[in-house]
Amino acid sequence: MDGLLIYLGSTPAFSPPCFTILYYRFVIPLDWIHEFVKEQIRLRTLRALRGVRGSLANMWDSIQAWLLVCIIGVVCGCLAALIDVCSEYLSDLKTGYCARDFTLGQTFCCKSVNGRSTCRYRCILLLQPRSRSQAIDCPDWRSWSELWTPTQIHDPQWVDFLAYCLIGITFALVSAGLVYLNPNRHRGSKGQVKTTYYTAGSGIPEVKVILSGFVIRGFLGIKTLWVKSVGLVFSVASGIITGKEGPFVHVACCVGNIACRIFDKYEKNDGKRREILSASAAAGVAMAFGAPIGGVLFSLEQVSYYFPNKTMLRSYMCALIAAMTLKFINPFRTDKIVMFQVTYDREWHWFELGFFLALGVFGGVYGSIFCKLNYLWVRYRRTSWIKDHQIAEVLVYVTLTLVLSYPNIYTRMNSTDLVATLFAECKEGDSYSGLCVHQTSGYTTIVKLLAFAFFNKAILTIITFGLRVPHGIFVPSLVIGACLGRLMGTSVEYLYRLYPTSPFFDACGGAGTCITPGAYALVGGAAVLCGVTKMTLSLIVILFELTGSLTYILPIMLVVMVAKWVSDFISPEGVYEKMIRIAGHPFLNNQREYIHTKSTGELMQSDLDVIDANEENTVTTLRAKLSAMIYSGFADGGFPILNGDLLVGYISCSELDHALEKTKHLGPDTICYFGHSAADSSMEDVRGEGGAGGVGGGSGGHLLAPPTADFTVYVDLAPLSVSLRASVEMVTELFSKLGVRYLCVVEQGRFQGVIHKKRFLHYLQEVK
Amino acid sequence: MDGLLIYLGSTPAFSPPCFTILYYRFVIPLDWIHEFVKEQIRLRTLRALRGVRGSLANMWDSIQAWLLVCIIGVVCGCLAALIDVCSEYLSDLKTGYCARDFTLGQTFCCKSVNGRSTCRYRCILLLQPRSRSQAIDCPDWRSWSELWTPTQIHDPQWVDFLAYCLIGITFALVSAGLVYLNPNRHRGSKGQVKTTYYTAGSGIPEVKVILSGFVIRGFLGIKTLWVKSVGLVFSVASGIITGKEGPFVHVACCVGNIACRIFDKYEKNDGKRREILSASAAAGVAMAFGAPIGGVLFSLEQVSYYFPNKTMLRSYMCALIAAMTLKFINPFRTDKIVMFQVTYDREWHWFELGFFLALGVFGGVYGSIFCKLNYLWVRYRRTSWIKDHQIAEVLVYVTLTLVLSYPNIYTRMNSTDLVATLFAECKEGDSYSGLCVHQTSGYTTIVKLLAFAFFNKAILTIITFGLRVPHGIFVPSLVIGACLGRLMGTSVEYLYRLYPTSPFFDACGGAGTCITPGAYALVGGAAVLCGVTKMTLSLIVILFELTGSLTYILPIMLVVMVAKWVSDFISPEGVYEKMIRIAGHPFLNNQREYIHTKSTGELMQSDLDVIDANEENTVTTLRAKLSAMIYSGFADGGFPILNGDLLVGYISCSELDHALEKTKHLGPDTICYFGHSAADSSMEDVRGEGGAGGVGGGSGGHLLAPPTADFTVYVDLAPLSVSLRASVEMVTELFSKLGVRYLCVVEQGRFQGVIHKKRFLHYLQEVK
Repeated sequence: MDGLLIYLGSTPAFSPPCFTILYYRFVIPLDWIHEFVKEQIRLRTLRALRGVRGSLANMWDSIQAWLLVCIIGVVCGCLAALIDVCSEYLSDLKTGYCARDFTLGQTFCCKSVNGRSTCRYRCILLLQPRSRSQAIDCPDWRSWSELWTPTQIHDPQWVDFLAYCLIGITFALVSAGLVYLNPNRHRGSKGQVKTTYYTAGSGIPEVKVILSGFVIRGFLGIKTLWVKSVGLVFSVASGIITGKEGPFVHVACCVGNIACRIFDKYEKNDGKRREILSASAAAGVAMAFGAPIGGVLFSLEQVSYYFPNKTMLRSYMCALIAAMTLKFINPFRTDKIVMFQVTYDREWHWFELGFFLALGVFGGVYGSIFCKLNYLWVRYRRTSWIKDHQIAEVLVYVTLTLVLSYPNIYTRMNSTDLVATLFAECKEGDSYSGLCVHQTSGYTTIVKLLAFAFFNKAILTIITFGLRVPHGIFVPSLVIGACLGRLMGTSVEYLYRLYPTSPFFDACGGAGTCITPGAYALVGGAAVLCGVTKMTLSLIVILFELTGSLTYILPIMLVVMVAKWVSDFISPEGVYEKMIRIAGHPFLNNQREYIHTKSTGELMQSDLDVIDANEENTVTTLRAKLSAMIYSGFADGGFPILNGDLLVGYISCSELDHALEKTKHLGPDTICYFGHSAADSSMEDVRGEGGAGGVGGGSGGHLLAPPTADFTVYVDLAPLSVSLRASVEMVTELFSKLGVRYLCVVEQGRFQGVIHKKRFLHYLQEVK
Repeated sequence: MDGLLIYLGSTPAFSPPCFTILYYRFVIPLDWIHEFVKEQIRLRTLRALRGVRGSLANMWDSIQAWLLVCIIGVVCGCLAALIDVCSEYLSDLKTGYCARDFTLGQTFCCKSVNGRSTCRYRCILLLQPRSRSQAIDCPDWRSWSELWTPTQIHDPQWVDFLAYCLIGITFALVSAGLVYLNPNRHRGSKGQVKTTYYTAGSGIPEVKVILSGFVIRGFLGIKTLWVKSVGLVFSVASGIITGKEGPFVHVACCVGNIACRIFDKYEKNDGKRREILSASAAAGVAMAFGAPIGGVLFSLEQVSYYFPNKTMLRSYMCALIAAMTLKFINPFRTDKIVMFQVTYDREWHWFELGFFLALGVFGGVYGSIFCKLNYLWVRYRRTSWIKDHQIAEVLVYVTLTLVLSYPNIYTRMNSTDLVATLFAECKEGDSYSGLCVHQTSGYTTIVKLLAFAFFNKAILTIITFGLRVPHGIFVPSLVIGACLGRLMGTSVEYLYRLYPTSPFFDACGGAGTCITPGAYALVGGAAVLCGVTKMTLSLIVILFELTGSLTYILPIMLVVMVAKWVSDFISPEGVYEKMIRIAGHPFLNNQREYIHTKSTGELMQSDLDVIDANEENTVTTLRAKLSAMIYSGFADGGFPILNGDLLVGYISCSELDHALEKTKHLGPDTICYFGHSAADSSMEDVRGEGGAGGVGGGSGGHLLAPPTADFTVYVDLAPLSVSLRASVEMVTELFSKLGVRYLCVVEQGRFQGVIHKKRFLHYLQEVK
């Protein structure tokens, strides 16, 4: 009755015990019932225990993930605070030093005087020598000329200028040197050694590629982490036009990747690790801008390939913890994580929409032109003599930037401060220094300065992006757009002050101030950013979290939409996609639609070598096949395993190579089996004994037959197959949504050929 | 040489013409070159023209989509404004009328007195009869007791109370009546007629199901649109605890569905239409809360099944246009789309996190308890006598609500006003009416009122949701959470006022005001909303767009995370999923992870009837097979078409039925062919003539053989197939990501069985 009891115990849903007992009451003796009840209790307790253990294991499983993202968040937050403080201090060092305490930056040096920072934006008088104006507000902060001015030089500004340039150049060279001294060497597809510098540039394109399933060895390692962090500090401090967001995303992903080693589950499972990397990318943005929600959306829209709800929650948590840590550390002692706090208290007017739209069109046009020119420049750099002189290039470039930037107060200050200045609103009661003026007379100076800043940044950025130092594109784009936006806003304000009663300005109702030039800067920044990076939703949310103001939500959304349309019309690829293309990484953009020109049958390779499970596949023949495949430059392909013309499985070249490596000791005549081969089912026993768990074989080898090896564990026994008549759209969906690397093509069950992802990507490149 | 010319013209990339010409210069005579150049020009012009035409067609294609979402946005915006104004007016009517102009609501009636609305929240004195307080501020607004009070009644409040109840009940009955008079009848899976009321309830669960690929006929029709709109106006005005967001999403989807009829492409392609519906859902949220970005995220996180970048942009545009329209119409003359504008000017303190977390835990617990109780109640309603007396239920319920709500000023005001009141901050200089008090003495009254409001709303909402009137769950949840949050905030403020020097409140630095009770309300609202609906990111963004304040972003994110954890721990299903389960719609939740207990082989049906393409399939035998299949209750299944044991295709029951219907005139002996059958390739010609494009047949029928019909066009010739050894996770992915309805299972090319989505869903229900 053992069978009956187990039956009763295991499927109670089908046959409730009470029924069965009723039925059997005349058959089963009483002690059997007793036995039965005992057994039932035992079974149920066991199951309950297993349930509890299962749910505990389950819980530990999910706690692991949460723990991991928390650790990553905390580490990222601390790292961000450290990088921020260091780069701020070094950046300030370009203009002077704190006499009271050399380890203080400008903000903290001046803060103690009257409790609040006075020297950030307000005290800078236009085009006045900085030292003089500061002498009034902040006696502890000294410019370099105050330290030592040779008697031959009459104007101390030249000393400041030289110090500014020299320190900046030194920092840039330190950054470039760090990158240069830490190259990554790896083997190319044909075995040659390639040298790349993973720590240079933004890192977002590569993270995108990694999240799409491709492996770039060493890109997220410890070495990359520290080189990129330190390099970033110096490159930001040097004064080249750069931002921190791209490198921060890269750094956060490094942290995530390294943290994955804590838990076996994440260390061993690439898919799980990618989930954590998506979350880390969100933390990267959160730590760069104090924008946790923007970070999650950035990860969703821009970086991640596959972003289910679960990953979203992890990203959310990771970004939240990073932002919390940053807020807790409070590196700038502002008690805020909002970087460019603004409080626009005026609603926008409908007549302003025209100007906003113009900004949107400009953003789209500039963005796509930027992408194209930058692409050409980067390609030129990779092929011309510059390739081998990239430190010299950095030197030339940083000198140019610093010399051109020093004369103008807005280009001289670092990018973050500039954005804050441009976004700031002019309030009626304010002292009207800097970008805000009382009368119409001050406008020309502002316009000149802003126009110079705009052209300076807009042109230099094109060559900056792709330089061999860690740098980002987010803040530079923002600066360019904000300069132009502020320029336009100031002009509109000027017009309003000239003609306050014009019917065009009816909506203002003749109020003293009606236009908010800072909002134009915000709108302009959004437009250019969208044009350059093709971000939409995440960009808007990041901007709101940056400024803390939602008043201009509708104009900004509209402008971003327009910029997106315009830039998509001119060129559908964003700057990151272009970078991926230059680097030659395989990346299937699942956000694009393709107009297909070929059929599935035309796309598949039908002349591929196959392994017939019915033939006698010895190590020798397999080696020959493998060599031929690799020789034909198709080392990441594989062999379909057939039984007649029916598909049994698929083995990739690397797996086959690995398997053959393991059977070396068995000699060249070893016969290899691949999964169930219907033809010789008599052999099954031999294999069963020979090696259930992989390569073993040779059980009967010494007697009569040659040794055998079972390769089944290396075979993908359930390769995804599509019909020959399936549409190419279907094929695209399978590749992009399921992340498979190959598809077998069958027609009425008979094998026809294989489509490899790499080949398919080539085809997609063509149809674009 | 014609061939050469075409060759040159069509593949210039491979053989540049100049080269070819150089090569052929001695062979080809001069006039040939002339000819060649002419031909080249002609070809290139043609190609260019074709390109232009192609890109124009392409452009028109995408312009169609943008045009469509713009139309939907504008219509939704107008509709929302209309519904808002009407429901506001009718809702005000419950308390009184405007003596100056009966068509004005309270806000507008009082506005003209001193240019600003005075009577919304400020003038309401606690527990004072509303009429008296208003007599001071707003002489034009009269309560009903002022119009007529019978001499027998000494206290005019009773008249106001009666009027309030009677008018509310009338509105509720109008709403319920409208729904009752417009039922939707459709056939169930076994042919019986079912009556459902699509216009009742939220509509979001059904929209989710529709977007996952299931068709609910009539759910998005014109009738539903107008009934739901009008019904919503009355249900909101009646005073039952309800919001507008769910019905607005439904209404927006109706608009989207109807607008799709403008363009053929969207009318005919279900997939394309679903894209537009996703966009419409975003517009629905945008029009309900003036939250365009929140709308897009809502559509992404909560409603849509498949949300690629393109759909996101469309949603973005649709939501933007809807919000723009609303802002342009400006129904409340506030010039803002932010509904509950707040300007919290105090940052949060770390010691407050403990209270926030408690709110989060409560939100999670309440949310899941709410879902469970509501589920039980709705199920009870569907099975008990209430089923047939739902108008009576509405009557009882609305009477109860109104009678219980009238005595307390906070429950008496409509939900939107209440949320605004609860979110509002107390400023130092304010007049301290309502929820803000000067001294510690006023707190007890506020606490009592809020506690009553909380319990009132928290309990009544459980029975409201599922009532047969149009209603939503978003605002009610917000109200419940906000009541509790404000309660806690007020208590904390009270504690602070009692012990301002306690070390616990160190962070406040002894300031006069330190706690912002309104922010607690916001946090509480977020927590309960998350617990009930399981939204995370979209919820937070919606709240920010609702309040326009980003100060509390980190605490709110944290609290939402905690609420999500707690509620997921208690029950993993949100209220919408529960509703879907009750309605019995097939819905594969692609956001959940399942622990599988069966293998692919156990899941597939191997005993299904099949069609063998080698047999003689006459109309009679096919009819018999079809009837057998339908009789076994599997009308939405189908037949695999085999050639031996190789899979050729798949035909669904409905398609087969349709095909057989069309061949009626050919007689019962007609032989039907399904695609390529390798066995009888000799027949191919006959079929080729007979009917290339569907059912034709009978070419040789009159001579010797019976008539034939070609069913190929009805057959899915590329059914997706998986290997028997594929994991169930893979099967789940294929179902959820590709949206297929069936998967064929093969093993080494041989057909094994079929997995149908419906069966698979049953299995997933079990493993949960």
